[in-house]
Amino acid sequence: MPHISVKGEKIPPSPIRKLVPFAEDAKKRGIKVYHLNIGQPDIPTPDIALEAVKNIDVKTVEYSHSAGIESYRRKLVEYYSSVGIDVDYDQMIITNGGSEALLMAMNVCMDAGDEVLVSEPFYANYNGFTVPSDIVIRPITSTIDSNFALPSIEDFERHITPRTKAILICNPNNPTGYLYSKQELEQLRDIILRYDLFLFSDEVYKEFCYDGEQYHSVLNLEGAEDNVVMIDSVSKRYSMCGARIGAIISRNKEVISSALKVAQARLCPPYFSQIAAEAAISTPKSYFESVYNEYLKRRNFFVENLNKIEGVYCPTPKGAFYTMVKLPIDDCDRFARWLLDEFEYEKQTVMVAPATGFYATKCLGLDEVRLAYVLNIEDLGKAIKCIEEALKVYPGRTIK
Amino acid sequence: MPHISVKGEKIPPSPIRKLVPFAEDAKKRGIKVYHLNIGQPDIPTPDIALEAVKNIDVKTVEYSHSAGIESYRRKLVEYYSSVGIDVDYDQMIITNGGSEALLMAMNVCMDAGDEVLVSEPFYANYNGFTVPSDIVIRPITSTIDSNFALPSIEDFERHITPRTKAILICNPNNPTGYLYSKQELEQLRDIILRYDLFLFSDEVYKEFCYDGEQYHSVLNLEGAEDNVVMIDSVSKRYSMCGARIGAIISRNKEVISSALKVAQARLCPPYFSQIAAEAAISTPKSYFESVYNEYLKRRNFFVENLNKIEGVYCPTPKGAFYTMVKLPIDDCDRFARWLLDEFEYEKQTVMVAPATGFYATKCLGLDEVRLAYVLNIEDLGKAIKCIEEALKVYPGRTIK
Repeated sequence: MPHISVKGEKIPPSPIRKLVPFAEDAKKRGIKVYHLNIGQPDIPTPDIALEAVKNIDVKTVEYSHSAGIESYRRKLVEYYSSVGIDVDYDQMIITNGGSEALLMAMNVCMDAGDEVLVSEPFYANYNGFTVPSDIVIRPITSTIDSNFALPSIEDFERHITPRTKAILICNPNNPTGYLYSKQELEQLRDIILRYDLFLFSDEVYKEFCYDGEQYHSVLNLEGAEDNVVMIDSVSKRYSMCGARIGAIISRNKEVISSALKVAQARLCPPYFSQIAAEAAISTPKSYFESVYNEYLKRRNFFVENLNKIEGVYCPTPKGAFYTMVKLPIDDCDRFARWLLDEFEYEKQTVMVAPATGFYATKCLGLDEVRLAYVLNIEDLGKAIKCIEEALKVYPGRTIK
Repeated sequence: MPHISVKGEKIPPSPIRKLVPFAEDAKKRGIKVYHLNIGQPDIPTPDIALEAVKNIDVKTVEYSHSAGIESYRRKLVEYYSSVGIDVDYDQMIITNGGSEALLMAMNVCMDAGDEVLVSEPFYANYNGFTVPSDIVIRPITSTIDSNFALPSIEDFERHITPRTKAILICNPNNPTGYLYSKQELEQLRDIILRYDLFLFSDEVYKEFCYDGEQYHSVLNLEGAEDNVVMIDSVSKRYSMCGARIGAIISRNKEVISSALKVAQARLCPPYFSQIAAEAAISTPKSYFESVYNEYLKRRNFFVENLNKIEGVYCPTPKGAFYTMVKLPIDDCDRFARWLLDEFEYEKQTVMVAPATGFYATKCLGLDEVRLAYVLNIEDLGKAIKCIEEALKVYPGRTIK
């Protein structure tokens, strides 16, 4: 029997999905499981997107352009203009979700052995995009004590080596909910220009910024046009995660033309989903207002009530719909598994994402979990109650 | 400005798509272009698949299982059983087209520097799946003189090195239309067992075998269960290329569990397309009979009439809907471009795929083109007439 590649072993199991079988077992035992582990919103997809798919009138579902349907890309130009980003339709390639966009950015800009700096904790699936191409993630630690602010410029510079090729950020941040200020982004620009690096920015949560804080796209960093590659997705904006439509956007012509070759090899993004995504751009403003208000309500409720629990610290996220929470526990992996295997409160429990999976540095995040506030207030309340009761009886509780 | 990776340069431009801008220019000049360059059938997608998408009744388009919707995988078990393949639903992962399935197979089984043996000419996009992971394609030449039969066992053995990890075949073959016999597959089995290799088999054209010849899946090669990885797609079977739904199938548990980790990193295949693909499995037999008869008619018409042209040799393909044709020309790239830029016959021309792009060995295939017989008989007739007239006046004609 031939040996498989060691790459599979090098990809750590997803902290978001690895416990799914245990959640399924709990459900089989009649336990209601609140899923705070995954950013799967319960928000309805806009009708206009679903209707567009129902109204498709083609005889043959043909390949589309490898860069995506042209009318969709032209419509996206209008959307980006509406959020203050001036790009043209030939500066983007439509992808299979933000996932493929990031994979393309890595593969087009980086060679085996090249290093990308990422502030940790980071979106765990970045590992799955780097390992197959032997790209090396160099983590720079941000801490819950500073609410996961961007590490200092000195910290970044200390980690730069001759193999450093890029910096990757997620803004607003998954998993921390941190929103980078204009000043922080300008500091990053100075670094990438000084060291001739790419800046990959995963901006799929741009619609979710709270407290009057402003989202700033890296595409608006003057002087860094050739260095910047933006990753986007319709998954969260229109609550259509399953559609798998994203985009890679850059003003660097070499990047886009090389990405197009990679895109041509896999032929095209999915047709039905592109139709849905194009129609979704015309979603009425009222949809976003109501979604935004709902998330704001959830965030405030979630943060306020989590912080009421003894020994719990939950920073107030400024964007996205996640928060990294510090708990009085010995080991988040043990705790997450115990919640599903051994705990129940009135026939209910909670599934959380252990924070260790979001850190590349070993043993960081042991007493943290990532929680997604993607459920309605009533369910969030029940989930928080479960966490509160669980912490009272968890055998690895660290405060008496 | 940071340098992009050299990988983009290493991926040769797609022979199927690289001339598209010149075809667009020809159309702007009022020329009708017959597209024999790409396997985009004009056959309608089954109604049952399109109807299923119209009837989707969900509020939120959620992530599906990373391996694909379970009901779809269970239904696929029935489909495979109907074509004589006995597999279980947990031995497959649903992918973004056959493209992602092959990419996963490579990444899961092979490391940077590992070599895969492929008989050339081969599907040009294989380059796009190997280059980003630094996997090396070792071509073994098959020739039009033997109608592109599998190279001899000795030929394969001569190319095996300590870095050889796999053999990749496409059966029925794109671009040659060759169908491997049971005996040839058993010879391949003997090699992979002797040298402990993987056998990747791209079987997306399995529904298209002519002249009573039988398709044999590598999944039925006894004794090679742990070595075999099959690549499938719904693109050609149901004429829904744009849906982008494929599958990677193996009885090797390590392969599937490692592929699942890669699949989890990119979250899931597209939802709407999975719904269409699941419904398509119930397509009535009459659809396939009429599609099959149509292709058989086209193939016979195409081969017969091409071979009537002086200096042209077109082998009779036993499967798929492509044929590699030998023409009396100096350089297929020059010829293909000339057809679009300079030639017209009654305001019509033809777009062909230059064969050089399907060979890894330089200067092979100079006098060959790949043609797809995916148009109706009337259009095929007009396209052949164009080729006949073009060959009379092409400046690089090699016979007088």
